[in-house]
Amino acid sequence: MSGLAGVTAGQSAICTCGLGNGLNYRGYDIADLALKANFEEVAYLLLVGELPNKAQLKDFTRKIIAGRELPISVKEVLKAIPASSHPMDVMKTATSALGCVEPEAEDFSDQMAKIIRLLGAFPSFLVYWHHWHKNGKEICLKSEETTIAGFILERLKETKPLAVEVKAMNAMLTLYAEHEFNASTFANRITASTLSDIYSCMTTGIGTLKGHLHGGANEVAIKFVLQFDDVDHALKSVDELFARKEKIMGFGHRVYRNVDPRSPVGFELANELKELETSDPKLFDIAKAIRDKVKAEKGLPDNIDFFGGLIYHYMEIERLYYTPLFIMSRAAGWAAHAFEQRANNRIIRPSSEYTGPEPRAFVSLEDRK
Amino acid sequence: MSGLAGVTAGQSAICTCGLGNGLNYRGYDIADLALKANFEEVAYLLLVGELPNKAQLKDFTRKIIAGRELPISVKEVLKAIPASSHPMDVMKTATSALGCVEPEAEDFSDQMAKIIRLLGAFPSFLVYWHHWHKNGKEICLKSEETTIAGFILERLKETKPLAVEVKAMNAMLTLYAEHEFNASTFANRITASTLSDIYSCMTTGIGTLKGHLHGGANEVAIKFVLQFDDVDHALKSVDELFARKEKIMGFGHRVYRNVDPRSPVGFELANELKELETSDPKLFDIAKAIRDKVKAEKGLPDNIDFFGGLIYHYMEIERLYYTPLFIMSRAAGWAAHAFEQRANNRIIRPSSEYTGPEPRAFVSLEDRK
Repeated sequence: MSGLAGVTAGQSAICTCGLGNGLNYRGYDIADLALKANFEEVAYLLLVGELPNKAQLKDFTRKIIAGRELPISVKEVLKAIPASSHPMDVMKTATSALGCVEPEAEDFSDQMAKIIRLLGAFPSFLVYWHHWHKNGKEICLKSEETTIAGFILERLKETKPLAVEVKAMNAMLTLYAEHEFNASTFANRITASTLSDIYSCMTTGIGTLKGHLHGGANEVAIKFVLQFDDVDHALKSVDELFARKEKIMGFGHRVYRNVDPRSPVGFELANELKELETSDPKLFDIAKAIRDKVKAEKGLPDNIDFFGGLIYHYMEIERLYYTPLFIMSRAAGWAAHAFEQRANNRIIRPSSEYTGPEPRAFVSLEDRK
Repeated sequence: MSGLAGVTAGQSAICTCGLGNGLNYRGYDIADLALKANFEEVAYLLLVGELPNKAQLKDFTRKIIAGRELPISVKEVLKAIPASSHPMDVMKTATSALGCVEPEAEDFSDQMAKIIRLLGAFPSFLVYWHHWHKNGKEICLKSEETTIAGFILERLKETKPLAVEVKAMNAMLTLYAEHEFNASTFANRITASTLSDIYSCMTTGIGTLKGHLHGGANEVAIKFVLQFDDVDHALKSVDELFARKEKIMGFGHRVYRNVDPRSPVGFELANELKELETSDPKLFDIAKAIRDKVKAEKGLPDNIDFFGGLIYHYMEIERLYYTPLFIMSRAAGWAAHAFEQRANNRIIRPSSEYTGPEPRAFVSLEDRK
C-alpha cells in the first residue's frame, strides 16, 4: 500500500519496464532507440504507436520546428517572472500560460497538434527566459538546427553544437522519455482522467517531476561526483557514507533489481564526451570508480541519473537546467499516457484508510480554549 | 484496478468520507462546520488538526488578509494572459507565477506561511484578472471584508455582499474544502511525494480539478436546470433522458450510496437564496422536482454539485468561476494532504499491466515503409 509500490494501477501499452530486454518503448529496445534514432522518431513512436517513415518524420519535425516561436503574451509572462525563479517553475508557468493562449479543443480533437506544439515550445520557454534574465537580451527562436537536441544546445550555448554533443543530447532525450507509471506520469494520468486539458496534464507532470526524489536525481549525482579531487578521495568518502549508512543518489531503482538498461548507454556517452576539449576526464574516472565500488560492495547498480548528470556537466549545461531538459523529453511519455487514459477513461480515485479522530461534537468559537 | 476504485492508496487522518455521520473533517460533522464556523476556521482545522481558538483565528485571518496583495510580477502575468483564457488556466498560471516569485523553502519550514499566503491570494488572482480584462481596470485588492467569502463576493461584484450571500459562500467554501483521496487531492499527494514544492502541489490540484468529471459538475448541473421553462417541462425532459439512458450531472457519487451529507446543507442555502430580489424562485422548484424524480425513479441521491450550481447562480456568479471558487476552498484540503504526505513520505509510484507489443527488432529509418 505504501506509495502504491507493486500495485497495478491500470493497463498500458506504451512501455515495458523490467520485462523483455529491460526497457522497451512500444516493443523497441531502449538502447536501439537511443543510439539509432532521433528523439523526434521516439516521440512519434510513443505518441502514435509506430516508428515514422521518412515522410511522416519530415512532417512531424516540420511541425515541431514551427512550434518553437512563442506568442507575445507568453514572452511577456517569461519576462515578468524573475531571474531568481526556479527553472522548473519557469517551465510550468510558461506551459500554463501557453494553455491560456492556445487552449486545447474541448473534444481533444487537436491533442496531437497541441503536444507537437509543446515539444517545439518547451526548449523555447527555457532559452528565451534564460537569455532575457541572465544576459539581458531577447533571443531569436529561429535556428538552422532541425532537431530538438540541436536546437536546445545551440540556443542555450549560442554556438553551433558538436556532433558528439547532439548525439548525446538526443540519446538523453530518448533515455528519459518514458518510464511507465512513474510518479509524474501517473499524476499526469490522474489529471487526464478528470478530462482536463493536455496543458494541465503537462503542468502536473512538471510539478511532480520537480521533486528531488524524481527529476532532481542527476543534479544531486553530479554534485556528489564534483566534490572529489581524485579517485582515492572519492572511494574513501564512499566508505564513510557506507559506514554512516547514507544513501548515494544515482544508485538502485524501485523497478530494476540488476541493471538499469539505460545506464550502459549513458556510460558510453559520458565516455565519449570526456574527450571534449572542455571536459575533465578525471571526473569520468571518479564516477566509474564510485560506480564499481557501490556495485561490488552493496550490490546496487547505477541508474541513468548517475552518468546522466556527468553527461550534462560535460556539455556545460547549467545544473538547474537538467530537470527542465527532462521535461522536454518526458513530455512525450506523459502525453502518450494522457492520450491512452483518454481513450479508455475512468476517473482515478482511490480510497484512504482513515486514521484520524473519532466523530466529535462541534465546539463554538466562544467555547474553545 | 480500473480507476483505483476501492483501492486503499494510503492512510489519512484528515477526513472520513462515508463513515460516521457521512463526512467529517478531523472528526467534526460537515453540517456543523458549514453552518456554525467560518471557512477560515475550517481551513485552520484541516491544516492544523484542531479548531482555532479566538487568538489563533485572529492571527490566521490577519495573515490571510495580508496575502491578498499580489507582487507586481504576478500582476504583469495576469495582465499578459488574454481575456479569452479559461479562468482555471488563469488560476493555475498565477499560482505557478507566485511560486516563481515567492518560492517555498527547500526544507518546507515555511509551508504553513506559504499556504496561508495562497489562501489570501487565490481570490485576488481571479478578481484582478477579471476586472483588468473584462472591465479594463486595475482593481484594488484592499477590502474591509475580513472573510475570504466576503472578499470574493465584494470584489467580484463590486458591491457590499448581503449577509445571506456571505453565509452561503462561506458554507460552500467549507462544503467543498476536503474530500479524502478524490482525483485532484490524490494527484496533489503524488506531487508532494516527490518532495516538490507546495505551489506545484497546488497547480497539480488545479489542473486536475479543471476536468469536467471533477470540478466542472456544478456548472453542468445548473446549465441543465436553466434550460427548463417550468417543472413540467423539466420532468418530461428527465423522462426522455431516462429513456435514452443518459446521465444527469449532479446525481450519485462513487463514495456515497444513500446520501451526500453536503446536499441537505446546499438545499437549505439554495432555499434561502431563492428569496433574494434578483433570484428566480422557479429554478429552485425545478431543481427540487428533478431531484425528487431522480431519487424516486432511479434511487440516485443528488450530490453537492446539483444545488451547488444553483447557489452560485443565485449569487450571480459567472458560471466559469464556479470551479475557481472550488480551488479557493479545496486548496485547504490539498495542502493538508500535502503536509500529511510530507510528514510520512514515500514516493507514490504504482505499476501497470503491460498490454503493448512484444519485443520487436529495430528498423532503421531507411527501411521503414
